[in-house]
Amino acid sequence: VTAFNVIKMLSKEKLVEILSAITAPERVSIDDAELYCYSYDASVHRCRPDAVVWPENAEEISRIVRFANEYRIPVIPRGAATGDMGGALAIKGGIIVDLTRMNKIKEVRIEDLQVTVEPGVVFAQLNQELGKYGFFFPPEPGSGDACTIGGMVACNASGLHAVKYGVTRDYVLSLEVVLPNGRIIRTGPKVLKTATGYDLTRLFVGSEGTLGIITEITLRIRPLPRHFATAVATFDDLIKAGKAVSQIMKSGIVPSALEIMDKLRIQAVNQVMNLALPEAEGTLLIEVDGHPDAIQEEINLISRICQDEGAVSVVCSTDPKEREKLWAGRKAAYAALIRLYKPHIKPIQAFGNDIVVPVSKVPLMLQSIQDISRKHNILIATMGHIGDGNLHPTIMIDVTRKEDWEKAKAAGAEIYQTAIELGGSIAGEHAIGITRAPFIELEHADLIEHWKRIKQAFDPNNIMNPGKIGLDTIPKDPLVFLAYAKYFEGKTDAA
Amino acid sequence: VTAFNVIKMLSKEKLVEILSAITAPERVSIDDAELYCYSYDASVHRCRPDAVVWPENAEEISRIVRFANEYRIPVIPRGAATGDMGGALAIKGGIIVDLTRMNKIKEVRIEDLQVTVEPGVVFAQLNQELGKYGFFFPPEPGSGDACTIGGMVACNASGLHAVKYGVTRDYVLSLEVVLPNGRIIRTGPKVLKTATGYDLTRLFVGSEGTLGIITEITLRIRPLPRHFATAVATFDDLIKAGKAVSQIMKSGIVPSALEIMDKLRIQAVNQVMNLALPEAEGTLLIEVDGHPDAIQEEINLISRICQDEGAVSVVCSTDPKEREKLWAGRKAAYAALIRLYKPHIKPIQAFGNDIVVPVSKVPLMLQSIQDISRKHNILIATMGHIGDGNLHPTIMIDVTRKEDWEKAKAAGAEIYQTAIELGGSIAGEHAIGITRAPFIELEHADLIEHWKRIKQAFDPNNIMNPGKIGLDTIPKDPLVFLAYAKYFEGKTDAA
Repeated sequence: VTAFNVIKMLSKEKLVEILSAITAPERVSIDDAELYCYSYDASVHRCRPDAVVWPENAEEISRIVRFANEYRIPVIPRGAATGDMGGALAIKGGIIVDLTRMNKIKEVRIEDLQVTVEPGVVFAQLNQELGKYGFFFPPEPGSGDACTIGGMVACNASGLHAVKYGVTRDYVLSLEVVLPNGRIIRTGPKVLKTATGYDLTRLFVGSEGTLGIITEITLRIRPLPRHFATAVATFDDLIKAGKAVSQIMKSGIVPSALEIMDKLRIQAVNQVMNLALPEAEGTLLIEVDGHPDAIQEEINLISRICQDEGAVSVVCSTDPKEREKLWAGRKAAYAALIRLYKPHIKPIQAFGNDIVVPVSKVPLMLQSIQDISRKHNILIATMGHIGDGNLHPTIMIDVTRKEDWEKAKAAGAEIYQTAIELGGSIAGEHAIGITRAPFIELEHADLIEHWKRIKQAFDPNNIMNPGKIGLDTIPKDPLVFLAYAKYFEGKTDAA
Repeated sequence: VTAFNVIKMLSKEKLVEILSAITAPERVSIDDAELYCYSYDASVHRCRPDAVVWPENAEEISRIVRFANEYRIPVIPRGAATGDMGGALAIKGGIIVDLTRMNKIKEVRIEDLQVTVEPGVVFAQLNQELGKYGFFFPPEPGSGDACTIGGMVACNASGLHAVKYGVTRDYVLSLEVVLPNGRIIRTGPKVLKTATGYDLTRLFVGSEGTLGIITEITLRIRPLPRHFATAVATFDDLIKAGKAVSQIMKSGIVPSALEIMDKLRIQAVNQVMNLALPEAEGTLLIEVDGHPDAIQEEINLISRICQDEGAVSVVCSTDPKEREKLWAGRKAAYAALIRLYKPHIKPIQAFGNDIVVPVSKVPLMLQSIQDISRKHNILIATMGHIGDGNLHPTIMIDVTRKEDWEKAKAAGAEIYQTAIELGGSIAGEHAIGITRAPFIELEHADLIEHWKRIKQAFDPNNIMNPGKIGLDTIPKDPLVFLAYAKYFEGKTDAA
């Protein structure tokens, strides 16, 4: 299946004319400045699309996709583009379908424990609305203030609370989807459970826009917890912190958050947020929620476990203000890293940065990350949702030095390899996109053939977000190629 | 794609020879008595297979399936055959693959919150083992003492605790599957979360053995709750009970069970179990679990809500013995029905007996069931997991009367139609099998084409459990045809 380049088939003017007739002239652009903006997401890559369109409903999307399918033009659905794996980029050209205008919360049905939204609704906006009823949608990505529900579903995103409350997939009850042939389907009824036939709902969750465009999402919601207890435990050794986590998980407590930050992260946070946290090798942030008596008992037990495992200090609190301060620090941890050093030393969200291992293997994984860091003489700042084994080792490099990129690439590949050897995964919550496509065979060599058959069954012309998840070819070694493009502008360019 | 009849291609002796060479002579049978036994499951249907084989590992299954694929012989995976939709029956002949010898709990990894089992492990056996560590696998079907984990995964089963703890699908982390071509794949790493490519794990969950044979299952487990509070609330009107449920779900409490029984069920239970429950029109059994202080507050609030909604009586208890008695009653409710009347008046688990509607629509659905019962002058005993909108209206008929079967069939179709009109589903937790295949188009007319493409991608020769889920043709009106076969033996027979 070949994806023709739209420019060869149609004049730009004709393309604009057709898309404008489907939507509206002011909702289509081939303007250079606009296309430049849409050539970025939160990844290291850059690829210029041929056009951007802002549809307002499923019918418009159906007509756009039907047209694109006829001309074999790639279609790339896009939310807030907060993804760091290049999933929202037009790596093979084509039309970006920006879904941010479809941002209505359509129905809040509290008795049914359900909410129905358009894909462009922002996570924080949804939870603000649900909060009025004392409910929430738990999976909270780091980008929750900006990312859209559509993007979360497409990437099966999660975050801080997955350890207790699960990931986006666990909350999706029903989807409306525009298929590549333009047909609009609903994947199931809006009920809390059903056992009827193949689970298309969860086939679309995490499919990264490669099977169709999600135009409506019905989510299960949960009652908001009202009481929280938080513990901060510091360790003089990252591995000890990992062992404490194993003991906590074994104890029968289900923390609502269980995060780790290493010294580099803590230093960065202290510097930016002025939190005066002890700059220990490993810091655990642990939270429980529930009934006031229950959380008090649980946080006491957690504190004892941390002390038994050799914590240098453990501080517990049920004060909401204290809690807010701590979480602000945790949430700023990535941004803080960017400001830690000289402007050209930056964290690179591309190499080995979102792995998962079984919880019992966390200490080994942490050890390996330290070894890899030393071996390549490269800074790696680790944090992560350690309670479910999801670690974010972030490699920091001088982005102006080609050698640093090569080192980061090699270190990242070793991190992936180690995670898989420990029975883990290369991707916990940031999906695959372009960045990790070259590594997918490491984990799923025997599955890709079946993925391709499913892809073929839904999208025979490969118009939906081509070049992602390792389903088809991408430029050779895109990881370095595209990353360079961003930093050595004008010299190379993948678009 | 045609499924040849095995008997036409191979002599029976040759079939036994080949299967014996793959497994062992004592683990293959074409004996009449054996095949007679395997022509039943818990459904109303009866279909005689051509052979039964008892494999002991994935390699044997791979070789069986490879052979069957070559000769286009249907292969029907079977656990405890507790399903009431005919999913484990050889409706097109073929080889039953009995998985009950593969009943090892392979690994209990508490720190990782995981357990890995073979498909033939019985639900109760698994929870007995996990209980030693203070953990459990929550979805508890009514048949939990007998049903296998493999069957639960194949059918996405659930039960009493789904309202708080979710369904089987929510706990499956990774599967080993033998595909129809004999290849053995693993659908993902054994980790608590991953976001890599298409979710084959959940595509196999609920696929009812039509895509491959599951040979190993890794489940997430949860800490066992240690304290429970139970409330029994009676109402003089089934609809009022439904409204109380809506108010409970809105309150922010998440009950660990929320069941309804109508008068017929209660009468049956009282008669069999000697429980002396008040024989009201509608009885709610409500349970919460958690910290002792939390559950006391919650059960008090639930009691208040029931009273506000007009309950005739509300009795609360935190006494474990009282709790055990109540749940024994609930669990015996179906068996009790069978004993309620003369021997030939029986509950028929075939027609409209496992629907789901949004919780807010439960009162309307209960009203409709009563109307349908009156209209057809037929007994319908309703109970169900009302907290997640899953109702089990059980039609009772004189099984010796053809007219009763016709009435039940018509009433069942109206129940399905109503559930769908209320935004619900025809199947909550008992899957589709043969029984509901004729009704699948009611709910999923626009999805079946896509299911068929997925089926084709995995099983091009249609050897895996053919005739199920509405994916291919079955004998005309099998519902009545096969049901009759069971009760009018010798006159008609589908096998």
